[in-house]
Order: sequence, then structure tokens, then C-alpha cells
Amino acid sequence: MTDYNESYSQYKEYFENALNAFLNKLKCRPEKLEESLKYSLQLGGKRLRPVLMLAVGELLGVEREKLTNFAVALELIHTYSLIHDDLPEMDNDDFRRGKPSNHKVFGTGHAVLAGDGLLNTAYSVLLDECFKGNEYISAAKYICECAGIKGMIAGQSADLIHENDEKVNEETLNFIYENKTAKLLMAAVVVPSILCGGKYYTELKAFGRELGFLFQLTDDILDVEGSFENLGKSVGKDADEGKYTGVRLYGLDASKIRADLLADRCEGLLEGFDGDTAFLTALVSRVRQRIQ
Amino acid sequence: MTDYNESYSQYKEYFENALNAFLNKLKCRPEKLEESLKYSLQLGGKRLRPVLMLAVGELLGVEREKLTNFAVALELIHTYSLIHDDLPEMDNDDFRRGKPSNHKVFGTGHAVLAGDGLLNTAYSVLLDECFKGNEYISAAKYICECAGIKGMIAGQSADLIHENDEKVNEETLNFIYENKTAKLLMAAVVVPSILCGGKYYTELKAFGRELGFLFQLTDDILDVEGSFENLGKSVGKDADEGKYTGVRLYGLDASKIRADLLADRCEGLLEGFDGDTAFLTALVSRVRQRIQ
Repeated sequence: MTDYNESYSQYKEYFENALNAFLNKLKCRPEKLEESLKYSLQLGGKRLRPVLMLAVGELLGVEREKLTNFAVALELIHTYSLIHDDLPEMDNDDFRRGKPSNHKVFGTGHAVLAGDGLLNTAYSVLLDECFKGNEYISAAKYICECAGIKGMIAGQSADLIHENDEKVNEETLNFIYENKTAKLLMAAVVVPSILCGGKYYTELKAFGRELGFLFQLTDDILDVEGSFENLGKSVGKDADEGKYTGVRLYGLDASKIRADLLADRCEGLLEGFDGDTAFLTALVSRVRQRIQ
Repeated sequence: MTDYNESYSQYKEYFENALNAFLNKLKCRPEKLEESLKYSLQLGGKRLRPVLMLAVGELLGVEREKLTNFAVALELIHTYSLIHDDLPEMDNDDFRRGKPSNHKVFGTGHAVLAGDGLLNTAYSVLLDECFKGNEYISAAKYICECAGIKGMIAGQSADLIHENDEKVNEETLNFIYENKTAKLLMAAVVVPSILCGGKYYTELKAFGRELGFLFQLTDDILDVEGSFENLGKSVGKDADEGKYTGVRLYGLDASKIRADLLADRCEGLLEGFDGDTAFLTALVSRVRQRIQ
């Protein structure tokens, strides 16, 4: 097995090159619109969804080139959701990846448009893929469902509705975790399966879901224990604002135990796959430790 | 020729039935999200884009059934754009079609999500169409380009950037008219052409563009001369806020003359078509008079 960090860097670099090539060709007027679109995409970040998509693709024997545009589209969708989520009327976050949020730089009106523009551009990329065949259309459609009103948007809506609830209830927490966080990770790991005839479809869907729960729970834990420096965003906000978090429901210690169990479940699912799952297994444990 | 009003009502009724069937099947959680999506779609309005699409389809001999889902998707996109445009940070409009704007009913955060949800759902509808063949993918892609960062969103961005300019410049005004308003009308009339092999493609694109300019200029005139009762939205706002309008650039009288010229150009383009263009010609004159 290649070293985990080296593999992660390789996947990430491949994706960053593809994204940069895409951004170099992305021109529009007014200049401010183009800048606002590119600003948030170029803030960097871990590129977890593209890396996951490429790693699962390699496991299933899907050529990277087939996945590139899906990875770009998914990152555009993820980025639009962060821009809208950071808006004053939503999570009201002034920082993202250690830099000012989109609306702090370009104003709230333009941040709304930048988000709309990224979402629309993601579908422009996906529609171009559709000409390649039905499995490409199915893959695009899967991303669309995960991002939509029965996916991420439903999760954001529930998050907003329940942000001032006095008590956290587990069913609602699970709904938010599954939709707001897990759905786009599910899209990342299921797209390669759809592109090769559905291999491990059910298992990958389950894996993406558990990984999403793990990711969000560790995020909630980090919001309590982390620092601005290693997160690049405001900390302690969730608890202050009475947001729906696992830590509020289970307490900090029990949340850590649950995170370990979720990591175990992810690893258990990976054991059922043929091929070299060492990278994905290591990724799960890094998500648990948040040092990936 | 059937009576214009009767034809308009028939197209509109066909579309309303299709939209209602679509909305009856549209379920999601939380309930507030579903309500906020449906609220703005059910405010009614003239359904100008769907009516145009159906009328051009009839002129070109394209079956209605082929156009139905494209018309629904286009209306979803138009509606999302109104919700985001009415937001306090954008046009800040508290009324739409005589009723409170989405954000006045559901809150600003949810209005952002309702817009995102409608845009995403439009693409869910369009991606389903893609399985039917390449011309359907091309039609979906055309709508996407008209709605996107080189289309409507670019127009909204320019509108926002220039809203406090002391002087109105014609190039910028044309950019806003073309992108913010004309592009979705172009989508409405070009989609039927794409679905039948590109018949009158260039001519319809030009017709949609001129009609969009006419529509926006009469809108600007009505903002000065109209009333809340017949517009269902606030009037006099544009001038008050120093928005980019034709009336500010040309003056009221010259704007009316230009509107007449635009209507003539639309009618001139229609004269080049085979088949019965009486309905579309009448529609142009109603847009000029805004009594359609």
C-alpha cells in the first residue's frame, strides 16, 4: 500500500488540476460575478468529496477521466451550499477555511448569486456529460437527488427550522445528519458505481451514509474541542446558538464513543469489498481523528 | 384564427394542469420547505414563458407532450429567480403578484432555500428528459445556459452592481435587458425548435431576444405609470432606487416610441415564418400594451 498521505495528495492534486483547468475556461461578465464564483472555489479545503469519488473509482476500476467532470460538478454544488449556508440569514458565518466568507467579500446579494451561479454551472457540466450515455445521465441524476429537496436542501431546511429548539430529538438529528451532510458524500461514492453498472451500489450507499454521520458527529465534537486555527471557521457557535448537534443530544463523551462505532461500521462495510481498500479504511480513521 | 384570449387561456390551462399534476406529486420534508416551494409556484401569474413555449411548439408542429416538462422546468427556474430577486439584499420587494413575497412568509433563510430547491428541482425534471434522446439533452442544456452565469444570473449581477449608478449607460442597460429578462424568453421559444431539429432556430432566438427587450422596457414604463393593483407588486421603486431602466436612459416618451419599434421588429420576424403566427403576433401587441 502506498502511504495514505501520498495517495490523498495525489487524488487531490489530480482534482485541483482538473478544477483549475475548468476555472481557467470559466469566463463571465460582470467581473465581480466571475470573481465571486472563483473566490469560494479557490479557498481550497480538503476536497474530500472529489478525493472519495476518485478513490472509489479506482477501487471499482473506473477510469479517472470518466469521473473528472462529476467530481468538479459535485465540488461546485458543495461550494454553493457553503456560500448560502454562511449567509447571515442561515448559519451567519463570517469565516470559511480561515478566510472571509463570500458575502463578507462580495456582499450578501452577490453571495446569493454566486451560489446560484455555482449550482447552475454544476448542472451545465452534468448536462454535457449526459451526451455520453444513459449511465452518465443516471449518475448526474443521482447527484441531483442528493443535492435537492429530498437531500441536502431538506437537511438545511430542517437545520434552520430546529436551530432554536430547546431539546434535541434523535429522529430530527438523524434527518439533518443524513440529508445535510451524508447525501453529498453518498453522491461521491455512488457515482463511480453507477458508471460501472451498479457494482457495490447498495454497499457504497451505506458506506457514504455512515461516513457522513461520522463526519458530522466529529464536526460537532470539533466545534466544542477544536480551535479556529485548525478549523478555519468560527468554533463554539453551534452550542452558543442552540444548534442541533450530536454533542447536545448525547454529550461529549458518548459522542466520541458513537463516533468510534460509526468508524467501525464504515470499516466493516469496506471489508466486504474486493480489492485494495486500505486507502479508504485509512480515510475513515482520519475522518474520525480529523487529521486527514 | 381563434380569439387571442381564448387561445391564451387554453395554453395557460394546459400548463396549469401539468404544473398541478407535478406539484401534487412533489413531496418533501420538512413541511415548511414543501410549502415554501409550492407557495411561490402557486401565486399564479401570466405563465408567459410556458404559454410562449406551447405556442411556438404548435407553430412548429411539436407535440405538446414533448414540451410539458420543459415548460414546467422553465417556470420553476423563473420562479426561483423571482424569490431570490425579491430578497432584501437584492431587489428588496415585499410583494409579488399582489401577495407577500416568499421571504415575508417563510423568512429570508427559507426563501434562499426555496429558490435553491426550485432550481435544483428544475434540473431534476430536465435530467429525466435527457433519457429521451440527444435533442432533449440539447434543449435542457439551452435552458441551463440561458439561466446561468452567461444568462439570467449575469443580468441579475449587473443589475445589482449598477443599481446606484448616477448615470445609465446604454451598453449596460442592454446587457441587463438581454440577460436578466430576454434569456428565459429566448429559452421558451428556442426549446421547441431544438426538439424538432433546429427549425427557425436563429429566427426564434432573435424573436425571443426582441420580445425580452420589449417586455422589460414596457415593465420599466409600467413602473412609472402603473399601479399596485394592476401589477401586483410595488411601483415607482425602480426610479426611487436609481435602478437601471430604459425610462431613466431614454425618458418616458422616447421609451414608448422604442417599445413600439421593438414590437414592430418582433412582428417583422414573425412574418418570416410559415404557418399561423396570428397568436404570437397578438401576444407581441399585448406585451406592448401589457394587457395580455
